[in-house]
Amino acid sequence: MIITSRDNPNVKRIVKLAKRDQAKKEGLIYLEGTRLCEEALASGQKPAEVIVTESKADWAKKFTPDVEPLIFSDNVFSKISRTVNPQGVALVIKEPESGDEIPFNGDGKDIYVVLENTQDPGNLGTVIRMADAFGFTAVIIGPTTCDPYNDKVIRATMGSIWHIPVVRKTMDECFAFFDGRGIDTLATHLKGNGLGAGDLKLPCAYFIGNEGDGLTDDTTSRCRKFVKIPMRGRAESLNAAVAASIIGYELSKLV
Amino acid sequence: MIITSRDNPNVKRIVKLAKRDQAKKEGLIYLEGTRLCEEALASGQKPAEVIVTESKADWAKKFTPDVEPLIFSDNVFSKISRTVNPQGVALVIKEPESGDEIPFNGDGKDIYVVLENTQDPGNLGTVIRMADAFGFTAVIIGPTTCDPYNDKVIRATMGSIWHIPVVRKTMDECFAFFDGRGIDTLATHLKGNGLGAGDLKLPCAYFIGNEGDGLTDDTTSRCRKFVKIPMRGRAESLNAAVAASIIGYELSKLV
Repeated sequence: MIITSRDNPNVKRIVKLAKRDQAKKEGLIYLEGTRLCEEALASGQKPAEVIVTESKADWAKKFTPDVEPLIFSDNVFSKISRTVNPQGVALVIKEPESGDEIPFNGDGKDIYVVLENTQDPGNLGTVIRMADAFGFTAVIIGPTTCDPYNDKVIRATMGSIWHIPVVRKTMDECFAFFDGRGIDTLATHLKGNGLGAGDLKLPCAYFIGNEGDGLTDDTTSRCRKFVKIPMRGRAESLNAAVAASIIGYELSKLV
Repeated sequence: MIITSRDNPNVKRIVKLAKRDQAKKEGLIYLEGTRLCEEALASGQKPAEVIVTESKADWAKKFTPDVEPLIFSDNVFSKISRTVNPQGVALVIKEPESGDEIPFNGDGKDIYVVLENTQDPGNLGTVIRMADAFGFTAVIIGPTTCDPYNDKVIRATMGSIWHIPVVRKTMDECFAFFDGRGIDTLATHLKGNGLGAGDLKLPCAYFIGNEGDGLTDDTTSRCRKFVKIPMRGRAESLNAAVAASIIGYELSKLV
């Protein structure tokens, strides 16, 4: 049955969930568009709801055969959609449960990036993608880092959000975990060493600060080592996701 | 004299220039906000026009003492502004003339990044900032790469747009220039070598493709060497600006 009324209770519910604030409260994520939905499904995410337009009913049969889809008219779908030309495909899924514990392999090769206070969703997504590419154990985000299930973050991860645990922790929790397991902790600092093999060792967690202000002094002072990306040009700093990626690239060489 | 009428010819002219399309036609750039304006001035850009609100007249005296500012009422300034809470400071400057020729130091240490078809302004700005940090000779952009004087690009460069030449060239012009001077040309490719010191040599130009589609086959095939960033994780690729930055970081070690 095609739902054509905006007053239908299913429509009202999905309209609410399409707003990130409401979905977050319920521990859910609303995804829209074929790329985002197919990435999530390919990574094993189970949809709680499937919403398609009539012309995309075949998509639902192919990609989500186990769930009865809600079929919305184009008009109704456009009411929930965030885009001007909606593709007519959306999912509601549960937030991954990786959010509670910091994983630990204990094989001496664990690598973590800790984003103390990243504000730009593109930067957070880019770091998650990089951490996945280099086989990190997890991405840790501080209490004030932006929502990892924000639409812009998910897009920027290109599917990596479903591959690697993203865990929100306080800096106290991070240092208790890392120090208790003999995991090296690194901060970038002007007084730091370079990034050669002699400067780095695994297992390792490195800390990246806010885009404008860098790491807090407190977090910096609690790290065991300072490192610095050698730069011979005029710019004084790199984009936060670029700096995180160069350090991650060097650490991944040690695996 | 404070301009309070939106019908004032100066206001009408600045309103037009604040739209990127019109400024571009005239070879001009409209900059707004203290950070962007001060970065441009600190890098020696000469303002053609200075626009401030009454409360920012002292800013103009301090930062642009040689130019008679246009003083707009808050109301009029908010008409030209792109932001909700304008800071009351704007400049019109000429586009840098670095856009015509590819610079060449000829000391054997030249490094260039060529962005064949970058569409995301944040990526372009991030690469320009990185190229400045690592002391590249220039950033080359292909005919379809986005406008480097787009507001989002300028913001992402954090001032580097004024430090390093950004030159628009066709791929034909690039290869004629690089091949004619014995400059190594690199494409990223799955069949490529790693990024060790043995895989790279200076002078060097490396090519980065479109965010979704990568480099065109034609450009790839014209490069002398293929390289690959070693990745052991699940993500198949990195963000374009991240990939450009890791290669740039490795090349800068050879200087």
